[in-house]
Amino acid sequence: MPVNLKTLTIDSISPIKGISLGTAKAHIKKPNRKDLLLVTIAEGSKVAGVFTQNAFCAAPVILCKEHLKNASGIRALIINTGCANAGTGEEGILKAKETCQAVSEILSINSEQVLPFSTGVILESLPIDKIKSGLPDTVKNLDSAHWIDAAEAIMTTDIAPKAASRKIKIQDREIFISGISKGSGMIHPNMATMLSFIATDASINQILLDKLLKEVTQQSFNCITVDGDTSTNDSFILIATGQAGHHEISQEDKDYKALKDAIGEVAIELAQAIVRDGEGATKFITIQVESGLDDAECRKVGFAIAHSPLIKTAFFASDPNLGRILAAIGYAGIESLDISKIQLYLGSILVAEKGGRAATYSEDQGKGVMKHPEISMRILLNRGHAKATIWTCDLSYDYVKINADYRS
Amino acid sequence: MPVNLKTLTIDSISPIKGISLGTAKAHIKKPNRKDLLLVTIAEGSKVAGVFTQNAFCAAPVILCKEHLKNASGIRALIINTGCANAGTGEEGILKAKETCQAVSEILSINSEQVLPFSTGVILESLPIDKIKSGLPDTVKNLDSAHWIDAAEAIMTTDIAPKAASRKIKIQDREIFISGISKGSGMIHPNMATMLSFIATDASINQILLDKLLKEVTQQSFNCITVDGDTSTNDSFILIATGQAGHHEISQEDKDYKALKDAIGEVAIELAQAIVRDGEGATKFITIQVESGLDDAECRKVGFAIAHSPLIKTAFFASDPNLGRILAAIGYAGIESLDISKIQLYLGSILVAEKGGRAATYSEDQGKGVMKHPEISMRILLNRGHAKATIWTCDLSYDYVKINADYRS
Repeated sequence: MPVNLKTLTIDSISPIKGISLGTAKAHIKKPNRKDLLLVTIAEGSKVAGVFTQNAFCAAPVILCKEHLKNASGIRALIINTGCANAGTGEEGILKAKETCQAVSEILSINSEQVLPFSTGVILESLPIDKIKSGLPDTVKNLDSAHWIDAAEAIMTTDIAPKAASRKIKIQDREIFISGISKGSGMIHPNMATMLSFIATDASINQILLDKLLKEVTQQSFNCITVDGDTSTNDSFILIATGQAGHHEISQEDKDYKALKDAIGEVAIELAQAIVRDGEGATKFITIQVESGLDDAECRKVGFAIAHSPLIKTAFFASDPNLGRILAAIGYAGIESLDISKIQLYLGSILVAEKGGRAATYSEDQGKGVMKHPEISMRILLNRGHAKATIWTCDLSYDYVKINADYRS
Repeated sequence: MPVNLKTLTIDSISPIKGISLGTAKAHIKKPNRKDLLLVTIAEGSKVAGVFTQNAFCAAPVILCKEHLKNASGIRALIINTGCANAGTGEEGILKAKETCQAVSEILSINSEQVLPFSTGVILESLPIDKIKSGLPDTVKNLDSAHWIDAAEAIMTTDIAPKAASRKIKIQDREIFISGISKGSGMIHPNMATMLSFIATDASINQILLDKLLKEVTQQSFNCITVDGDTSTNDSFILIATGQAGHHEISQEDKDYKALKDAIGEVAIELAQAIVRDGEGATKFITIQVESGLDDAECRKVGFAIAHSPLIKTAFFASDPNLGRILAAIGYAGIESLDISKIQLYLGSILVAEKGGRAATYSEDQGKGVMKHPEISMRILLNRGHAKATIWTCDLSYDYVKINADYRS
């Protein structure tokens, strides 16, 4: 079961003026399962996106990038599960285009105003006929309150739907932010097998929206890992409908900061939800790396720990075999690392310093921290002022089971 | 069980003139288990070593490097299991020195002529008294035929002992090469939680021995991975006793090449044995990356595949979910990769080309290859003339079990 993942109630996710969501069961891979999501976006909205850095990126990702560059204004998102339309060559591009064309016809917009997304098995052909057949149902189902339905419709190996919401005030107006995400394996920064869509009714110009999206991504979805695999289909889309009625944010003032902070909170909650629902996860692990020379080296150390199957299995077993953490710090590839300066804390317990076990540390203390489902560790490099936080989960029998059985 | 690992017989491993091996049960971590190995080396032998690149390298590794630099000639190796003497700070260094001192006294040599090695749990103090108590038994047990005993004495989570041997002719003399290795988890290049000791009675000068060791390492132990974790204690030692009676090899002539090839074969067999006995392994996987721009990028692609838990679990399940391999190639971090040029073969079956599934490929073909315990794949990047081969194993329930339970 997911680790301390909040149960969603319809009231907990606010509608966003200008956004409607409709789902359908299109039988893409399995019968009787919501697997198609249409999101419509009011005219005049601003949309920004970041995508996987995988060279083998999926056909819909290629198309999304083109449409974001060219379009007169994005008006719809179409998302299917069950097939990633990745590793599908030229035919994959044609099918992604056909999907956008079908959406544009049913909504009377241009096909370049549609962003397509797919998630599921790689190297299989997109069942375009099923998607087309499912489309009318998504349109009938469109509703501004359907956020949780939408979160359910984009799940693959996810156990639970993921959504988050915040409310802030800008220029005395109430501003709402709501978002959904999916993903639980093939999760790695830059980015994960993850899709996330966040919308706000705030008003902000395109340049600042793009900037805000990149800043938020670096502090949220680029800080998580489940298994170190970067997917072909990762996409994070941020929509600002501008319907809250305040003056457009056009500089990096306090309004920009307030909006960025709130969107950042939603993004972090959605990113953490992916780890909490990480395949087979039984522990949620926060790795704080502090006093490094720069952000990059703190992230390197954090990810070396977060990617180590040895450390992840030890956490699964609640076994304080903490030397494995030192080993991971040691092979993280940090230039001129002085191991005698490093301090390792598990929770509030000092475990290691001066290149060895702390005199005050006892294994019972370690066990006491490790038995909890939420575990944090701090690594102090003691050589600078940078810091980074990485979130991951443990590696359990169920991770193997889920990934060995995924397609069967 | 290890995947197709040869059962060793005493006859299959040749004694090496000038080398004796003695083991003892020193009760370091568990009772009634060979856990201490002494190797004595005849005067006049040449010794070369390569070690872990982990910044948190263990105390014995630090001492080994010093002794190899200073010594008048290495005369003994002392290896214990049950404790890695890593993450032990200043006290760890003192205990490693004390170990060398004890060996030097019992053999009447200098303590700088001893190389110490430890493998086992990190962050625990070396039980020096047990090692000292066990030493006399190792001396009594010294014998040139004790290679397999020695291989057993250095095992930790290994299921089976690992040894290999070759015989060649140089200048009409018979030359013997024998070696042992240990390791099965925390296995990653540069190097692994692995120890390997290879000896030959060939005669070769020090400069060429050092060069030969590095070349052989790059093609053997630096081509394997089980879980991507680089250990604190990895060491690979090559000894040439020079007792075969031929003229010393002092240039890179055909004798050098013959010796390097034969030692390379032993090293590759020992490296592959580590993967075959990889924690929980049920499949032995060979990844050949061809027609890359350079060796480095071929290795990057190979290790991206070899490190992917998603791919490793798919191999465990014999599920030809081969899109995961394309995804790994895509995130390997190769500059300007043209995915439309890449060809992926599983065994002799063409699986993917032109950015997608090959027209001739059927999943039954993929399943046919994947059900075997030995699987090879070829990735053609089609952009240069370099190639590299990486060996790894699958990721099974037992990997989790072994590492969750390792210390209990």
